[in-house]
Amino acid sequence: MTDERLVLALAGGVGGGKFCRGLAAVLPPERLAIVVNTADDFVHLGLHISPDVDSVLYALADMNDLERGWGLAGETWNFMAALERLGGQTWFKLGDRDLATHVLRTEALAKGRTLSEVTALLARRLGIAHSVLPMSDDPIRSVVETNEGTLDFQDYFVRRQCKPTFRGVTFRGAAKAKPGEAFRQALGRAQAIVIAPSNPFVSIDPILALPGIKDALRRRPVAAVSPIVGGKAIKGPLGKMMGEFGVEPSALGVAQHYGRLVGGWVIDTVDRDLAPAIEALGCRVKVCDTIMRTLDDKRRLAQDAVGFAFELATEAVE
Amino acid sequence: MTDERLVLALAGGVGGGKFCRGLAAVLPPERLAIVVNTADDFVHLGLHISPDVDSVLYALADMNDLERGWGLAGETWNFMAALERLGGQTWFKLGDRDLATHVLRTEALAKGRTLSEVTALLARRLGIAHSVLPMSDDPIRSVVETNEGTLDFQDYFVRRQCKPTFRGVTFRGAAKAKPGEAFRQALGRAQAIVIAPSNPFVSIDPILALPGIKDALRRRPVAAVSPIVGGKAIKGPLGKMMGEFGVEPSALGVAQHYGRLVGGWVIDTVDRDLAPAIEALGCRVKVCDTIMRTLDDKRRLAQDAVGFAFELATEAVE
Repeated sequence: MTDERLVLALAGGVGGGKFCRGLAAVLPPERLAIVVNTADDFVHLGLHISPDVDSVLYALADMNDLERGWGLAGETWNFMAALERLGGQTWFKLGDRDLATHVLRTEALAKGRTLSEVTALLARRLGIAHSVLPMSDDPIRSVVETNEGTLDFQDYFVRRQCKPTFRGVTFRGAAKAKPGEAFRQALGRAQAIVIAPSNPFVSIDPILALPGIKDALRRRPVAAVSPIVGGKAIKGPLGKMMGEFGVEPSALGVAQHYGRLVGGWVIDTVDRDLAPAIEALGCRVKVCDTIMRTLDDKRRLAQDAVGFAFELATEAVE
Repeated sequence: MTDERLVLALAGGVGGGKFCRGLAAVLPPERLAIVVNTADDFVHLGLHISPDVDSVLYALADMNDLERGWGLAGETWNFMAALERLGGQTWFKLGDRDLATHVLRTEALAKGRTLSEVTALLARRLGIAHSVLPMSDDPIRSVVETNEGTLDFQDYFVRRQCKPTFRGVTFRGAAKAKPGEAFRQALGRAQAIVIAPSNPFVSIDPILALPGIKDALRRRPVAAVSPIVGGKAIKGPLGKMMGEFGVEPSALGVAQHYGRLVGGWVIDTVDRDLAPAIEALGCRVKVCDTIMRTLDDKRRLAQDAVGFAFELATEAVE
């Protein structure tokens, strides 16, 4: 009998993109739905930019730059150079090729298409067979509280390079936003949920902040991959943010942050000593290699996480 | 005594850009106002594109590609390649550097700035000291009548490469548009008008179609440089368009087209035999080299045309 169970992944950012690439390698399109954070979307230079959606799209299409960690491989920056000469804002880097995505998206949204429709169109054009679903078609914006006041997410994250001290984040518009139609359908049908090793504060929490999502997830087997390995984020400012927020920057700290929402934690072998403390929170723990350097690493981690999520599902039934 | 007389130039397109580069080389900024056609402006991929304004800006900043004849020198096309992969429209070529101009302009217009303000800003950022004035801040669009029906200008000019037979052109919005404030001021102050060797049908006629402009010009010394040399357009489809419109593609045909509006014609030495026929229309004629290959050529032609315009002005006073 063919396995037809649907996996729903929650993802955002670069770590999310890498993990989703692994998921797409081990699950056929009809068995995977990827829901992506849109709370770091913003309008810049008049263009609608969806950084997390694009990170996932580019990773799935094998177009992402693996060294730089964001954007497209083989990218060029002549638009930015010309923009600088014209005195335009250059703190957010837009590559020449990447621009095509933003221009097409902006034009399609202006013509009344939804973000879901535009994302599906872009995915199709990039040859991506798997479903990449923006968490919502409504505008939701992360607003970061810092010691220097309230900052729009990209102001904090890119322009200020996370230098102000992180005090917390709110998701403007989330309470009134509707989770995307395909997201709700996938949530209803999914036999297992996996949370990517993405930043919990700014990539996953916005998804959880949408009406009804937390309640729906509490009734489901949810496995999560720790974005903190050996006390540090693999990439990005999560370690710094956790410390400033007063949370221990460790796999245990992340597990405490999500609480009872996550039934099973995938943590790295270097963090095996944390397993008992995480289990004491009422979670199961799976210890394995979680560093994703090669496609094989991604595939193996995806397989481990998905297998673990189905174990949780089976136990729940028993 | 310093010469303080103001010259007003009417221009559009590539020939206009080259001629204006010459004018800017022989006249200080306070003695030259360049009014540029905006009837070939259009919104493409959600971006506001002003091809004639940009041709003049890039020529004045010495950034224009002299071989290709349009766009920026040293341009790259990675945006277009990415857009093509995404299935976007690629019939109108937008270079990576050129895009910065369109993105900045579109954003500024969306924020409520006028086209005049945006153009002044771009000119300043490009180090252009001379005034480049869009003919109007109101939308005016050239619509071309052809044997295949009515076509938007860029559809006819770029997408269809002028292949349909030209039957005429109208300027939608022109009758209700207001000439730009700085254009009107320059028109009131100018001691001489020069018309660049631009396409009369689609570059100069739109300017003349604005309310009050023809009347104002009839009271002024107007010198024009023929865009047709030896029975052919230097560049572009003007010769073809004139033939299809039923006008002789010659310097005489162009002179007949403008009629009494132009008091003096600058024609090329190869067309010297046409001088008597043009003079018979009631115009004066100046014969000189009009082909602009080098900056010196442009400077010399500008000097000839401006000097000729002031001769007409002096005669009018006498």
